[in-house]
Amino acid sequence: MAQDDAAPPGAPAGPGFIGNLMRLVGRSNSLDMTRLADALLSERGEASGVALAGELLSAYASRTTEERIDFLLKLASRFGADRGRLERAIDRYRNDPSAANGVGLHVAAEARRQELFRRLNLAPGGTERLVRMREDVLAAAVVHPELETVDADFQHLFASWFNRGFLSLKHIDWNTEAAVLERIIRYEAVHEITSWDDLRRRIDPDDRRCFAFFHPQLPGEPLIFVEVALARDVPDSIAPLLAADRRPIAPRRASTAVFYSISNCQDGLRGVPLGNFLIKQVVDVLKRELPNLRSFVTLSPVPGFMGWLRRERNARASTWLADEDRRALLAVDQPGWTQVTAQSRALRPVLTAALAEYLLRARDGKGRPIDPVARFHLNNGARLERINWLGDLSDKGMQQAAGFMVNYLYDIAQIERNHEAFAREGRVVAARAVERALRQPPAVH
Amino acid sequence: MAQDDAAPPGAPAGPGFIGNLMRLVGRSNSLDMTRLADALLSERGEASGVALAGELLSAYASRTTEERIDFLLKLASRFGADRGRLERAIDRYRNDPSAANGVGLHVAAEARRQELFRRLNLAPGGTERLVRMREDVLAAAVVHPELETVDADFQHLFASWFNRGFLSLKHIDWNTEAAVLERIIRYEAVHEITSWDDLRRRIDPDDRRCFAFFHPQLPGEPLIFVEVALARDVPDSIAPLLAADRRPIAPRRASTAVFYSISNCQDGLRGVPLGNFLIKQVVDVLKRELPNLRSFVTLSPVPGFMGWLRRERNARASTWLADEDRRALLAVDQPGWTQVTAQSRALRPVLTAALAEYLLRARDGKGRPIDPVARFHLNNGARLERINWLGDLSDKGMQQAAGFMVNYLYDIAQIERNHEAFAREGRVVAARAVERALRQPPAVH
Amino acid sequence: MAQDDAAPPGAPAGPGFIGNLMRLVGRSNSLDMTRLADALLSERGEASGVALAGELLSAYASRTTEERIDFLLKLASRFGADRGRLERAIDRYRNDPSAANGVGLHVAAEARRQELFRRLNLAPGGTERLVRMREDVLAAAVVHPELETVDADFQHLFASWFNRGFLSLKHIDWNTEAAVLERIIRYEAVHEITSWDDLRRRIDPDDRRCFAFFHPQLPGEPLIFVEVALARDVPDSIAPLLAADRRPIAPRRASTAVFYSISNCQDGLRGVPLGNFLIKQVVDVLKRELPNLRSFVTLSPVPGFMGWLRRERNARASTWLADEDRRALLAVDQPGWTQVTAQSRALRPVLTAALAEYLLRARDGKGRPIDPVARFHLNNGARLERINWLGDLSDKGMQQAAGFMVNYLYDIAQIERNHEAFAREGRVVAARAVERALRQPPAVH
Amino acid sequence: MAQDDAAPPGAPAGPGFIGNLMRLVGRSNSLDMTRLADALLSERGEASGVALAGELLSAYASRTTEERIDFLLKLASRFGADRGRLERAIDRYRNDPSAANGVGLHVAAEARRQELFRRLNLAPGGTERLVRMREDVLAAAVVHPELETVDADFQHLFASWFNRGFLSLKHIDWNTEAAVLERIIRYEAVHEITSWDDLRRRIDPDDRRCFAFFHPQLPGEPLIFVEVALARDVPDSIAPLLAADRRPIAPRRASTAVFYSISNCQDGLRGVPLGNFLIKQVVDVLKRELPNLRSFVTLSPVPGFMGWLRRERNARASTWLADEDRRALLAVDQPGWTQVTAQSRALRPVLTAALAEYLLRARDGKGRPIDPVARFHLNNGARLERINWLGDLSDKGMQQAAGFMVNYLYDIAQIERNHEAFAREGRVVAARAVERALRQPPAVH
Repeated sequence: MAQDDAAPPGAPAGPGFIGNLMRLVGRSNSLDMTRLADALLSERGEASGVALAGELLSAYASRTTEERIDFLLKLASRFGADRGRLERAIDRYRNDPSAANGVGLHVAAEARRQELFRRLNLAPGGTERLVRMREDVLAAAVVHPELETVDADFQHLFASWFNRGFLSLKHIDWNTEAAVLERIIRYEAVHEITSWDDLRRRIDPDDRRCFAFFHPQLPGEPLIFVEVALARDVPDSIAPLLAADRRPIAPRRASTAVFYSISNCQDGLRGVPLGNFLIKQVVDVLKRELPNLRSFVTLSPVPGFMGWLRRERNARASTWLADEDRRALLAVDQPGWTQVTAQSRALRPVLTAALAEYLLRARDGKGRPIDPVARFHLNNGARLERINWLGDLSDKGMQQAAGFMVNYLYDIAQIERNHEAFAREGRVVAARAVERALRQPPAVH
Repeated sequence: MAQDDAAPPGAPAGPGFIGNLMRLVGRSNSLDMTRLADALLSERGEASGVALAGELLSAYASRTTEERIDFLLKLASRFGADRGRLERAIDRYRNDPSAANGVGLHVAAEARRQELFRRLNLAPGGTERLVRMREDVLAAAVVHPELETVDADFQHLFASWFNRGFLSLKHIDWNTEAAVLERIIRYEAVHEITSWDDLRRRIDPDDRRCFAFFHPQLPGEPLIFVEVALARDVPDSIAPLLAADRRPIAPRRASTAVFYSISNCQDGLRGVPLGNFLIKQVVDVLKRELPNLRSFVTLSPVPGFMGWLRRERNARASTWLADEDRRALLAVDQPGWTQVTAQSRALRPVLTAALAEYLLRARDGKGRPIDPVARFHLNNGARLERINWLGDLSDKGMQQAAGFMVNYLYDIAQIERNHEAFAREGRVVAARAVERALRQPPAVH
Repeated sequence: MAQDDAAPPGAPAGPGFIGNLMRLVGRSNSLDMTRLADALLSERGEASGVALAGELLSAYASRTTEERIDFLLKLASRFGADRGRLERAIDRYRNDPSAANGVGLHVAAEARRQELFRRLNLAPGGTERLVRMREDVLAAAVVHPELETVDADFQHLFASWFNRGFLSLKHIDWNTEAAVLERIIRYEAVHEITSWDDLRRRIDPDDRRCFAFFHPQLPGEPLIFVEVALARDVPDSIAPLLAADRRPIAPRRASTAVFYSISNCQDGLRGVPLGNFLIKQVVDVLKRELPNLRSFVTLSPVPGFMGWLRRERNARASTWLADEDRRALLAVDQPGWTQVTAQSRALRPVLTAALAEYLLRARDGKGRPIDPVARFHLNNGARLERINWLGDLSDKGMQQAAGFMVNYLYDIAQIERNHEAFAREGRVVAARAVERALRQPPAVH
Repeated sequence: MAQDDAAPPGAPAGPGFIGNLMRLVGRSNSLDMTRLADALLSERGEASGVALAGELLSAYASRTTEERIDFLLKLASRFGADRGRLERAIDRYRNDPSAANGVGLHVAAEARRQELFRRLNLAPGGTERLVRMREDVLAAAVVHPELETVDADFQHLFASWFNRGFLSLKHIDWNTEAAVLERIIRYEAVHEITSWDDLRRRIDPDDRRCFAFFHPQLPGEPLIFVEVALARDVPDSIAPLLAADRRPIAPRRASTAVFYSISNCQDGLRGVPLGNFLIKQVVDVLKRELPNLRSFVTLSPVPGFMGWLRRERNARASTWLADEDRRALLAVDQPGWTQVTAQSRALRPVLTAALAEYLLRARDGKGRPIDPVARFHLNNGARLERINWLGDLSDKGMQQAAGFMVNYLYDIAQIERNHEAFAREGRVVAARAVERALRQPPAVH
């Protein structure tokens, strides 16, 4: 194709170009991916978007970590908004802040990579590969903070694409494909699933349920899932729920649904709200199936408690930790203290008060409760319902939370009010009994 | 709930509020929808988004056209970007045009209704209802141009949500659900489907195919579909393709796939690119199934030809229309001229030259070819392949195009090049024979 | 293959034989099908059953009617039980009527064609092709009564294969594949479906239902279907049910489910009980979905009434027809009598009495009620509930039943008792009002 | 219901009867099941078959083993053919052996329990429960030989119901439901599947396949399955095929499909031919997918070898075992002989000759080869292709077959011929090399 030869470097033409590019890409570095990205955003991308997108994604998948990061950094530096165009749009808007100029400004301010991501999505399997690409961004952003804008664009796009309206809720049970179940085993983040038998105990008995959100473009990949136990009471410890030899109860006789484990599966969807919607829809589904259910609670870990307590104990000054508390707390450093009745008895009041302080009053740098699990449920509008002494005696449970577990209550009638109190005033809505566990009782409110 | 009574008007609290609001909405006007929209964008929306979204959409569906337009106008006037916030973001960016401030500017410039639309999508069936809402916007924008910004936001969002990567291609045949087939009958926009028998002739025989794109959230609604005939030659008229008594050929013996009808089904998705992807994927699918296929062409109408010609004939000056042409063209105003050999013979050269002029050279106010079908295929990278005299003798065909039909050729190897010529230079790529039909031959290029 | 050459004519060996046979079969007559049948029953059939069965079925499908009948006659004459073997089994059984010898006798008495049919079923699509073959048997048996034994074997086999436990009930609605709906249109045997619009009116509105039985091996072929209208009362005429302009009612407000049309679709399954199971399962399904339903009735034609009445009027003696009845009935021969009030008024009592006689007392040669629809519902355990004067004014309704329609009531609590009364004593269980319509009231029972 | 009271014991009437019966059945013994069976065969069964069948099956499921056997014995003693009727049918046939009387005899000779089984199948889940009932029959027949006729009836019926034409072949892989995979683990009868990881290695890699037959009425229950390895050569030992660390090969590069495990899953389907059809269809499926496959072989155990050899060694006289053989074979009784080179070397020729003798010449009481696996493959038309020394060193492999494994070859072109040689003449078709392993070479044939 003679005319190709004559084409200037910046404007290669014809199918030969893509062919050549792909061959190059096979053996070269991120420059080629960048070139493919340019092509995808050009007229060429309009004509051959599906093919070009596929090529770029394949190239990316075949590269070393270093080359990938190189490409991601290019996304940050070269695929932001077009500065000149943005400046002009600002000028137009400042001249005449009309609605049309407002829209024009929004369009001009959009990073070019957003359109790039949308075009990459044209390729078969594109959605999943973009999710994986964002996982790389998140991993690399630790060392390359300039990737944060790329991440922000990903999050913005994924929040739109993984909108709850596009997800489907599926009941996970023993008739689910093994490939999905295997991922459930792998992704379980709260109480490890130790074997297929353990898994079966959690999804197969009549009084156990598991639900997950799926996206049509990632059919075999759960996005988030929750494990539910039907029970007669609000449980205070995890071990009996997971016991191999427990006797199932008839679902019609259960009064309580216990969300005892909720796990996000896709790092690449960080920041996309899923858990809130999942819990509330599962409440709906269960209510319709089992009108006998009266309460919906979690049995939750308190993963940040002991870390915080350690920091408090190490701090010169603590607003609430007395010297005698510090002395009493020495016992908690000795493995096996739960077995020693005297130690356990002595520790209980001080640890309980510490936990109440941690959950109700302690705040991080941004003024939020420190515990991530607490933040999640409180922001969903749940209420901190109960503190359970020695609820989780596993190594992890002891190390993270001195064995404590807590219940959060999802009372649909109160959810809005609770959420607002939390979102507007930063107030933790808790049951009376929990508040009473504080050393200094809270001011009346 | 006593504390509700004390709540200031602008900050109603608790679940009672929504209940009250909904009751109000049942009997009131767009103000209530606006209030629901405000609620949906507030913390309340975070806690009870699914329910609130459902209520707003139901309210909207139950209103009169007038009330709906009222609400849409509110979307334009009250749900744009927050001006103060946008001004601050502009200042920050002008101070320091960092990547982060660029992202911040983009976020601040986003109209609030975009987030509103995303939250409305939380409700079951939300996607479809938003598509219907945009149909209202398009209809109302004719009289209310201020709705154009709302429309722009819809288009931006839908281009992302209805990205080709989220669509699935389905083969429509006699085993398709009647509810979908009925829509195919209804949406067919090129050659009317007159009955279920007519439909069957287009989708059931071995040498006929129909493909449509679907979105997972609108499972029974085709978005766009194309009808294909497998043939031994490039056809020059439509009637034999649709004849009730034709004999099917064996697909393995076909050399040509003819796209003889392509119809967009959803007004609400105007501006979302679908047709280009559909045609190219169908080419792929057919190639894989039938390696014997050598060419992929359309048999297309020329809907704007006679309107343009009328305007030319009425114009004082025409760059190409001679007085004798004007006289000769008088015959075209007489119904039945195709039956009169002498008239037909006399008209053919002048009409053919006019059509070539229309397709190859005439331009609209924006410098684009006037014919919308031509624009579509040329922009997809197809080539104008052949002009067919008396290809469509139906009333519509005679009125719109003096009976002409044309073929556009999809030659995958040339598509990029053709598209670029068209997109960059506005050049219409056509076969030699078509160019020769011009009165003044084109300059060599 | 040298050893094939040496094989005696009666014992051809090896794959070459089948290849040869198939080639022969392509151009020859029923002898070859018979030979294929022999092969299929031999050791060869055990090794290559699927292929041989496919060949025989294809051969059969490609033959003329004459050749097929020839083959079917061979099935009758040459593929019965092996006589010698049967004689020996009888001897053994008469010697020692042990259970084992009973089983041996049963096995020896089985016609060889039964095993042939089972082996033909090995081929893909075999089940459907066997159903079609039996259609040929039924058609040919009219002239060839010796085919009745072949038919008996088919019926025995199909009653086992199409056992209700192997069928699935499907709801037919507007989301059903067009190919199935087209068959519903074609197979409707009671009230003709005149168009797709007519069909839609019967399956799409909320207060209309249609259910069909399917067999897994004939996935696109309904076996039998029933059309149901939900109503507020027991209907007395068909036209309002089928009216194009009627207003649907809310299913939750219906009290009555009306089975107004039930059609067998497969001639080849004659004698296999399907309708009884279909009606009872549909009653179950509707009851569960709509607990508000109180009664389940038919609106049925009386297809044999006028034929019987003609015979009675032509007969010298009738047990119940008085001379004045004969005179009165002359009016019924005049078209349009329903329009003439006087005639209609005069005819009503005598026709009503005649219908009651026909349904309650008249018997055919085997002592059964004459009306086939009556026999079907009565044998199912339904009760003859009501006679409807001028319920069906269509040509067919007038010719077959002088416009009469009847309701049969399916009262689940009475079904067993009714069926037994009918099956054991031949008694027609009817509502009082129907019995009172008899000229001579029935003896008390 | 007063008239019920008057009903004679043998003819209870009305729905009340069934209600009462069911209540009785809840607490009583097999007599009640017998009574339900009588009812199911009566007119009552025609009217309420589905309900009655369900009740009888539930009653059966809830009984003790003893009560069940009692009922099964009743099936043998009381539900055979009606003797009087059979005698009359014999008389009629002897008088006039017409086709119709032949059919009549067949019908009269059918045990009443066959119709009972067909009616039991009306109940939801009936098919599976009947399969389970036959498992009981098979288990009980060991002590109650009179159950053999019941078993014969079951087998006859199941051979018809589980006809290959009604089964569907499914590819079992990692996307199969866990519930089905769990059954694959449980039913594997040849080489134990030790864990889910072991299972995954057999079904997930590209060069491994597993196929099973399913019946539409037992959707979660595989009937039979086969595990296949794609390989480059005919394998001579099992361990490398199952190794955890082996490297998969690309399917397109495989020349050989190895059927290394085939397991029947349902005892209740004993005698129903499944394996033959399964293997041949899998050959078809694989051939179509992978035209590169040249040979289809098994890697099979020889489960009866060592048992037979022990009997030979213990026998006074053996037609082929010389005294020195007996001495040499003493070594085989010492565990670990395979590790001792000298012993192994000494045993190889005598064991190999013994195996050839066992497979090619030894016959059981019915004149058939002794080895069940050999009988299965030879009867399918496979050829004994190779003897593999030390092919299976597992405990089971050593105990059953001194470590031998064999390959059977499925050469489709030879299958008919091989099957006939085996079925008619009892001849074992084997490769030359296997025949040469015989002590006395076979006569030329």
